This record gives sequence, C-alpha cells and structure tokens, in this order.
Amino acid sequence: MDDGSILDRVAALGLPFPAPPASVASYLPCLVEGSTAYVAGQIPMVDGAVVNPGIVGDRVSLDEATDGARRAVLQALSALREGLGGSLDRLERIVKVQVFVAAVPAFVDHPKVANGASDLLVEVLGDAGRHARAAVGVTSLPLGAPVEVVVTAAVRPA
Amino acid sequence: MDDGSILDRVAALGLPFPAPPASVASYLPCLVEGSTAYVAGQIPMVDGAVVNPGIVGDRVSLDEATDGARRAVLQALSALREGLGGSLDRLERIVKVQVFVAAVPAFVDHPKVANGASDLLVEVLGDAGRHARAAVGVTSLPLGAPVEVVVTAAVRPA
Amino acid sequence: MDDGSILDRVAALGLPFPAPPASVASYLPCLVEGSTAYVAGQIPMVDGAVVNPGIVGDRVSLDEATDGARRAVLQALSALREGLGGSLDRLERIVKVQVFVAAVPAFVDHPKVANGASDLLVEVLGDAGRHARAAVGVTSLPLGAPVEVVVTAAVRPA
Repeated sequence: MDDGSILDRVAALGLPFPAPPASVASYLPCLVEGSTAYVAGQIPMVDGAVVNPGIVGDRVSLDEATDGARRAVLQALSALREGLGGSLDRLERIVKVQVFVAAVPAFVDHPKVANGASDLLVEVLGDAGRHARAAVGVTSLPLGAPVEVVVTAAVRPA
Repeated sequence: MDDGSILDRVAALGLPFPAPPASVASYLPCLVEGSTAYVAGQIPMVDGAVVNPGIVGDRVSLDEATDGARRAVLQALSALREGLGGSLDRLERIVKVQVFVAAVPAFVDHPKVANGASDLLVEVLGDAGRHARAAVGVTSLPLGAPVEVVVTAAVRPA
Repeated sequence: MDDGSILDRVAALGLPFPAPPASVASYLPCLVEGSTAYVAGQIPMVDGAVVNPGIVGDRVSLDEATDGARRAVLQALSALREGLGGSLDRLERIVKVQVFVAAVPAFVDHPKVANGASDLLVEVLGDAGRHARAAVGVTSLPLGAPVEVVVTAAVRPA
C-alpha cells in the first residue's frame, strides 16, 4: 500500500495520526515475523492518559467506547508503521482484529463498539482493511481502558 | 481434505450443516491469507437469534453452553468453507481454537464447554481437527451469546 | 536457539523446568504448522493443582498473579519444547503472548501481571523472547486459575 495515501486518508477524516506507542522493556509494540505483523494490544490514550476510562454499560457509553476503538486501531496502525520501519508501504492487508470491551454482564453491543475499529480500517485502507474479527466483553483492561484492540496484518517481507 | 466426506460426517452426527454467516460491511466471516485462514468469532445462532442467551452459571447451564460451542464451531466450518470458495478440499488442518465463555466469576468448567467445539472438530475432521486451544470466561458476548468460538486453520494456497 | 543454554538459564533462575502438559483427547498442548508453533493456553499448575486459585483483586494478590504468569509461561515453553520433538533448538523467537487475568472490574494492573510472563521470556531467551503482547481481565479461567498465558512462536520447519 502507499504510505502517503494512507496518511492522507487519515488526515481527511480529521484525525491526527498518533505517535507510535513507546517500546517497553520486555515486549514490543509490533513484531514482524516473515509475512505477518503482530501488533500489541492498543488502548485509547492521549497524552499518556486513557480516554474515557471505565466499564461500558456503567460509566462509559456505547459512543465513547466506539470512539475508543477507533482511537485504539489508529494507534495500532501507527505501531505497525513503526514496526515496518516508518512506512506502511509494505502493508498488504489487515487479517485479524480482536476487540476486547470492558463491559457489564448485560452488555450486548460489542459489534457496534468493534465497528469503530473495523470501519476506520476500511475507510483508511479500503478493501485491504477488511479482516476477520472477534469481539468479546471483559471485566477490566489495562489502566482502566474501556476497550483494547489487537491487530494482525499481512506484510511484504523486508 | 475431502469436502464431501466432511459433509457426510456432519450429517452422520445428525447435525444440519449451517448456511455460512453473511458478510457484513467492514469485516469478513473468513479471511484467507497465504496458507492461513482466519475465521471471525462465531456465536450459536438459529434463524437469526442466539441459542440460549445469557451467562453460564447463571441462566445458562453447562450443557447448553457446550451445545452452543458445538453449534458455533460448525458455523465456523461453514464460514471457512465459504471463504475457501465453497469447498473444504483445500483445508489442511485446524491449528487454533479460542473459546470465550460468558461466565460468572465462580465458573471453572471452561474446558468442558470448549470440548463441545474441540470434540466436534475431531469427530468431523479426524486428526486434522486437533488444535491448540485456549478457553477463558468473559463478562458478556455479542447479542447475549453464552459462548463464542474463534477458529484459525491451515489451508492449501489457491 | 540452543536447547541446553535455555535450560541452563531457567535453572540459573532457580526455577525447575516443568514437565510438558499432557495431551488430552481433542486438543494438543502445542501444534506446529509450517514455521509457526501455537501453544495451548497455560494456567499455573503444580502436581495437578492450580497455584493460587481465585480472582485477582479479590482472593489473589498482584504478586501471586504475576508469579502465576511466570509459571504459566514456563509451562508454555515446556509444551513448545515437547511439540518441537523434545528440544528448543528449532525455536526462532516468541512472536505473540496473550495474558488473560481473572480480575475484578476495578483491576488496572494487567500489564504488571503480564510482565511476569514477558520478563521471564526475555531472561531465558534474550531478544528472541521479545514479543507483541495483549493483556485483558476476564471473569474466570479454567479450574479457577488466576491467569492464563497463550504463546505463539516462530520455529524452523522440521
């Protein structure tokens, strides 16, 4: 894919392309092995703080969670870009997205939250953004995040 | 594997082979990339409604959840078949199954629920149905489903 | 990687290298397909019993859960070694680790628990132990385990 065009499409959506998540001691924001890129789970963060922390169906609304999925998947793209050496040129397609929603037992709208991630990928990457998906509700997420998005992509080997 | 034999074995179990799940806007029921097929998370559905909705250990029994896992993994096979162009001939083996059970905190029998999926795969596919597996308990699942099954398979490239 | 050196490094940490988990009927502790090894979810077990069963933030402390993640990932290495024919010589690197923590809704320290797994992998495997990671909180895990660790590795094909 063309890195410049992807960034243009993100900009056209009015979204700032986030800085890639920092590498921490023992795990990597993105690991590329052969033709597969595994991106670490992303939670919606701005300036080092979680956006709309809490449980969906309790303190966090459906719209806030959906927005969080959108932010998180954009961070995943940024981590992927960094893992590919600073460009998405080698990205072939997204293959799998797992969406974990911190949700109360009565919550049933996981697909709507996950659409925040899925729709953004298609808006930005076109057909190459379509993917297999799983969405589930969990008790809690790192730092109190309402949603966590895990992306796997197919890439052209270096 | 031989598509006809697989369908015969499903029929011999007295199970109707379900229609493949419909494709929705931004994600795919099954994505094939190289020699890997990623199937979207499947929940037990009949005629557009979830079978036995609710939380296992609360409204849903162990047997109902196990039956749900069995139904869901059969839908995954149907999605896989559709993703491979309408035949399982190119299926080489199942490699991984993740089973998410909507369960109360005191629930401990996730392996028994997951066996509903695992046993069916081996009944229908023989040794090629054996897989690495993970089973966990979650707060809630899409549409109130009691169980969601995520399948990854190895396939012969087209 | 060198199997003997890996076992030496585990021993130097004062940890016994656990026996591989037994194969059960319909699923496998480790499935190798091409250049990818999928290890089944591991929970911390000693002598057939879960270590520190319960929910983190309720009966189980952060330190106990972190220790559990460390034990579980060591079992994953043992399952991987068995799946590779009794040696880690063919292991190229760890690519992905998923950590499921049985946790109360207020829990936020999933990354600390997951570090129990991630840090051990780097202590024992060096840079080849670094991986993409996702950590989430779930309601419950098999047999009441406080943590479950799912490892995927890149291997040299046989």
